[in-house]
Amino acid sequence: MSFRTRLEAGESRPRLADLYAPIAAELAHAERLFQAELQSRFPFVQHLVDHGADFQGKRLRPALVLLSGRACGRLTEAHPVLAAVVEMIHTATLVHDDVLDEAIVRRHAATVNAEWGNETAVLLGDYLFTHAFHLAASLESTRACRWIGHATNKVCEGEMQQVHHRGNFELGEAEYFAIIEGKTAELTAVCCRLGASYAGAPEATVEALERYGRNLGIAFQIADDVLDIWGDERNTGKSLGTDLEKQKLTLPLIYLLQLVEPEIAASLRRVLAEATADQRKHLRPYLETTGALDRAWQRAQQHVEQALDALHGLADSDAKSVLRILAQYVVRRPA
Amino acid sequence: MSFRTRLEAGESRPRLADLYAPIAAELAHAERLFQAELQSRFPFVQHLVDHGADFQGKRLRPALVLLSGRACGRLTEAHPVLAAVVEMIHTATLVHDDVLDEAIVRRHAATVNAEWGNETAVLLGDYLFTHAFHLAASLESTRACRWIGHATNKVCEGEMQQVHHRGNFELGEAEYFAIIEGKTAELTAVCCRLGASYAGAPEATVEALERYGRNLGIAFQIADDVLDIWGDERNTGKSLGTDLEKQKLTLPLIYLLQLVEPEIAASLRRVLAEATADQRKHLRPYLETTGALDRAWQRAQQHVEQALDALHGLADSDAKSVLRILAQYVVRRPA
Repeated sequence: MSFRTRLEAGESRPRLADLYAPIAAELAHAERLFQAELQSRFPFVQHLVDHGADFQGKRLRPALVLLSGRACGRLTEAHPVLAAVVEMIHTATLVHDDVLDEAIVRRHAATVNAEWGNETAVLLGDYLFTHAFHLAASLESTRACRWIGHATNKVCEGEMQQVHHRGNFELGEAEYFAIIEGKTAELTAVCCRLGASYAGAPEATVEALERYGRNLGIAFQIADDVLDIWGDERNTGKSLGTDLEKQKLTLPLIYLLQLVEPEIAASLRRVLAEATADQRKHLRPYLETTGALDRAWQRAQQHVEQALDALHGLADSDAKSVLRILAQYVVRRPA
Repeated sequence: MSFRTRLEAGESRPRLADLYAPIAAELAHAERLFQAELQSRFPFVQHLVDHGADFQGKRLRPALVLLSGRACGRLTEAHPVLAAVVEMIHTATLVHDDVLDEAIVRRHAATVNAEWGNETAVLLGDYLFTHAFHLAASLESTRACRWIGHATNKVCEGEMQQVHHRGNFELGEAEYFAIIEGKTAELTAVCCRLGASYAGAPEATVEALERYGRNLGIAFQIADDVLDIWGDERNTGKSLGTDLEKQKLTLPLIYLLQLVEPEIAASLRRVLAEATADQRKHLRPYLETTGALDRAWQRAQQHVEQALDALHGLADSDAKSVLRILAQYVVRRPA
């Protein structure tokens, strides 16, 4: 049975290592580039960088670069470089996000801010950002720097909007989507765009892959927001309920406030504004009985469908199969 | 009387606007590029960016790019772009520095962190960093991205070392210089390097200008550290004494601890560790009577001399005269 047949016939919960089989060598190469770029002559800086690098979890963004390239025909020498760059950008945003969220655990380890303070976390993030651009500038043209610069601007805009709307319990669906399209989907979109473009794909294919990446990012973020309310810290490996604590209104709550009677919505808004530790327990029954949670999952699923649609024009390949499965993988409900 | 004769014969405290006369048009062009690059469709983001842009004070770094280019013969279309990029990088580091220092006033205005919180300040800094690289990537080659990426890595390393050594009252002169060569001198060095290189100067001249910029940066940082202990908030326009509050040992204090008897040094270290608001008053007489302050000024002056030496090989020009005066300007004692 071929890789593809096994995969498509396969288990509902594939292991990422199996999904990444078609790009395993290039992914390993990208990791070596990541480590090499961040060597520091200062032991303290090196220690921080090693800690930051431990955050590498799903390696979703480098995988998107490599799978998009492979699905368009071929990987070049630029691909592992680009994969390392996007992972570095992503790690930088994680380190800064943890400062913003005052998170203390990330992927089962202490966050940089919890261990060394916000100042060091701010600087480590800057260090990762500037190294990412330095590495991107090692490529022949300025294309990667331009595209990644543009995408990261949008990421920052999305995050600034999110902070601005903190405590705004009237946040609408459109504003929520503007935020997550910036903070999450811009980066996954540019990963796929870069992968396709550096593989020499025609412009229409590059745009199709970008659309795939954007919808995958949106679906992923909705799922992440649902899990923040609904998940289990042991499974997700990070502090949960931080959105509620930080008074961030996410999609399940936006739907909840739409679905209940106005007077119940008003009382729920008061509960949300109080930001106590057991809000989560308090909200759970409402989220379930009103169908708000299901509606958020359905919305994520719609974006998975749009991501899959974007792949239609591509010739069949192992990489294309993995891209299809990956889109479904990112919105799995927890076990 | 020519511009140069007037300048060199002139007052001991020239106005920056006069010094920048040979590059006034290009500096104005750089400012327009700075503003245009940072346009945002989100009113809140635009408001923050406008606030961040108000920080523009001496415009030393863009002036160094332009004066270095002019001193090497000619300015190209790339020069105002590079000038805008380095000012954006510098503004990003200021916004993040204020988070690190918990500063509340910068150039007579509230800092971003004081007005909107650390989270917004972290993101605004990231936004400025990524826009700087995006703008640098609009140039034809990756050279500017590579050099600026490398320089900003070193800036971050220097800053991380500084945070790491906070509260270390045994910090030596060599470690102090390693920190300031990173956090300040790398950026002024790359400004001059870029200016010369994009003017088409030969490699030896590019390196001479880089040496000028590095020494000017070191001299400037020593002077800034002295003023933090010794200056007047009304004149400098920022919160002073923050180095002491944040337990950062700077050159005047390193010299002070070297110059006094060991038992007095031990008691001063205890005073420093306590970090109270009136430490500054307490330390002032020691700094003066021991000659520690003079020694720090002399050390700054030595780097001014090295900066001037680096200019020897350049043909005489208005721009060269301004570079000479600028090196002296950055270490002026307060009135």
